[in-house]
Amino acid sequence: MIALQEKRWTELADIKDELAARDWFMGTSGNLAIKVSDAPVKFLVTASGKDKKKRTAEDFLLVDAAGKPVEKTHLKPSAETLLHCAVYSKTTAGCSLHVHTVANNVISELYGDDGKIDFQGQELIKAFGMWEEDALLSIPIIPNYADIPRLADEFSQHLGTDKGAVLIRNHGITVWGKDGFEAKKLLEACEFLFQYQVTLNQIYSK
Amino acid sequence: MIALQEKRWTELADIKDELAARDWFMGTSGNLAIKVSDAPVKFLVTASGKDKKKRTAEDFLLVDAAGKPVEKTHLKPSAETLLHCAVYSKTTAGCSLHVHTVANNVISELYGDDGKIDFQGQELIKAFGMWEEDALLSIPIIPNYADIPRLADEFSQHLGTDKGAVLIRNHGITVWGKDGFEAKKLLEACEFLFQYQVTLNQIYSK
Amino acid sequence: MIALQEKRWTELADIKDELAARDWFMGTSGNLAIKVSDAPVKFLVTASGKDKKKRTAEDFLLVDAAGKPVEKTHLKPSAETLLHCAVYSKTTAGCSLHVHTVANNVISELYGDDGKIDFQGQELIKAFGMWEEDALLSIPIIPNYADIPRLADEFSQHLGTDKGAVLIRNHGITVWGKDGFEAKKLLEACEFLFQYQVTLNQIYSK
Amino acid sequence: MIALQEKRWTELADIKDELAARDWFMGTSGNLAIKVSDAPVKFLVTASGKDKKKRTAEDFLLVDAAGKPVEKTHLKPSAETLLHCAVYSKTTAGCSLHVHTVANNVISELYGDDGKIDFQGQELIKAFGMWEEDALLSIPIIPNYADIPRLADEFSQHLGTDKGAVLIRNHGITVWGKDGFEAKKLLEACEFLFQYQVTLNQIYSK
Repeated sequence: MIALQEKRWTELADIKDELAARDWFMGTSGNLAIKVSDAPVKFLVTASGKDKKKRTAEDFLLVDAAGKPVEKTHLKPSAETLLHCAVYSKTTAGCSLHVHTVANNVISELYGDDGKIDFQGQELIKAFGMWEEDALLSIPIIPNYADIPRLADEFSQHLGTDKGAVLIRNHGITVWGKDGFEAKKLLEACEFLFQYQVTLNQIYSK
Repeated sequence: MIALQEKRWTELADIKDELAARDWFMGTSGNLAIKVSDAPVKFLVTASGKDKKKRTAEDFLLVDAAGKPVEKTHLKPSAETLLHCAVYSKTTAGCSLHVHTVANNVISELYGDDGKIDFQGQELIKAFGMWEEDALLSIPIIPNYADIPRLADEFSQHLGTDKGAVLIRNHGITVWGKDGFEAKKLLEACEFLFQYQVTLNQIYSK
Repeated sequence: MIALQEKRWTELADIKDELAARDWFMGTSGNLAIKVSDAPVKFLVTASGKDKKKRTAEDFLLVDAAGKPVEKTHLKPSAETLLHCAVYSKTTAGCSLHVHTVANNVISELYGDDGKIDFQGQELIKAFGMWEEDALLSIPIIPNYADIPRLADEFSQHLGTDKGAVLIRNHGITVWGKDGFEAKKLLEACEFLFQYQVTLNQIYSK
Repeated sequence: MIALQEKRWTELADIKDELAARDWFMGTSGNLAIKVSDAPVKFLVTASGKDKKKRTAEDFLLVDAAGKPVEKTHLKPSAETLLHCAVYSKTTAGCSLHVHTVANNVISELYGDDGKIDFQGQELIKAFGMWEEDALLSIPIIPNYADIPRLADEFSQHLGTDKGAVLIRNHGITVWGKDGFEAKKLLEACEFLFQYQVTLNQIYSK
């Protein structure tokens, strides 16, 4: 268990370093989680209020299925840990990433009233396992309730598959996949598609 | 005192390195300050005319509450040291950062006639300690007087809180917070919000 | 042969590192190839499903003119290896690079119905060996068939020169040149021209 | 002389590294020069056709006032060395930098018919030594003649000051200043101002 936990810690810390290098945690935003065990569910989640540009022994803490620390610690789990709890309760995913980028927030605002944004004919949707020529990737956009349990409840309605992505309006994206590699792949594919769509919208002004 | 001063020096030098890596000091613009003592007020401030991509023993110098060097030195404090003096005179803040980015200058021009820019419903305003669903972050925009004492006087009118941000029209942003960590967090949150707003404006053309 | 193969491996790995640092392989997209021998044709190509930010001994594998592994291996060649096969079958090129960027995908969509995009009067077209004041660089844009053999067949129609570039609609660009240095030069010149054109289009809205 | 030449070499190589990290030499574009002696004029200039991401002993070569190699060498001076010759013949500048960026090329096209672009009320124009509140920075934009001697001749008409900047239409910018530090400062200030203006133009569509 300890060896596995260390392996997962390193996996998540490497992802954190890579996303931090892209400045995807502006203003200490964002939080990350990776599952360590299934029965009972335990996962590592980012501690609240840390500088994600630095790599320290206090970056993550182990929590249970309800998001409570497994061991006594002065660290506090991220305020939005309940969203990660929802992922591990409703899906078989092993990693979930919540990240703010300018492009994902802009898309969440532009298409927020539609409740979703669709992508078709884009090569990058293959990251979601969609290989058919007419495949359609639809990413839900949910309202940003300040009340986290209510937000987690709304978010849970969209956890029907073992990998996926949900935008929260003006509050970033959450992606989940079987492991860190897949979750990061989905996150990057979404960011690429969002930057693409933002750029098209800048040309065909609304 | 020496140990504390060295600690603050390192804190500010680390912030400088991080912001320099983002190219936030184009054309040698920008200046940074961190408080070393309260009674009397002394703070470290960037020396004038240095390449902020390099880290040297002459990057900062210690000045008093009036912005005058505490010790004999060939270094000159930044031309805009008076703005940092205002921060430490009017607030309890421990760090203040003045930075030019394309996004903050564009926003200062677009909304300059309004004298402010408001953000509401954006997750990132939580960096300013605003957690309510309908909270409003209002960032003042002041004219860019070439006369620095006049500019510092105008700037002082907006120093009512112990953390905050003020835009100077076509002359970057100044943020202040209790320490380097908080000041950097505010700076990043503002930059994110400005880039978001600029992108929306590029879509909904004026 | 082994020494040459190692030299080519390093050449391609260096290019991969440099493009990865620019985030040009988002969502594990993109694939790269470099020729090792001419008679018979053998080339190194990126293995499928790898994290291109990492540099490992399993990043590439050696394939023959038909894109089949030369030696027994658990690695799978990139799904789009047939496009690289076409390059080495129809031209004398030594390196071919297929990369997704936001700008190249946006351009492929904006000008896709025209079947091409033209550049004239741009200094950067000199990268393609065009030095005359009125030279015209025309880059074909082909449809993105999900069926790779059909896509490779369409792509082959545009392999008339020993260095060049073809856009696939919403599916990135493929460039080829005599060696890694030239292929990378063409890739960068195209990216620069595309970003330039996207920016102009953002100003002169459609 | 040798010691001074080595010092200048390092100064220019450091600038090259820094600009290369920003991807300001896309497609092997751009060239740099630094003066080593005044009577007679000798300067180091980038060798033609090198990858500017790498730092090698063949990056620069020493040329005379006419741009001819001072010593026997297999290296060729940059095709545009004549522009650097013009700088050292007409001004007291010690360093000149010619760089392509997307923003400087877009600005050169947008304002090319006006023959110049003006900036006023922008803090960053202080990099050019303009401290008055109503100071005006005017950057000339000249046509991009394919014939280099003709281009150098046109360029020479704008070398009236010991530091400055000239845009060549769709062919980047050339800046010159008393040393590498000042030339880089001017280059960065221009890039900042151009990105600012491009962004405003994207909002107030033409």
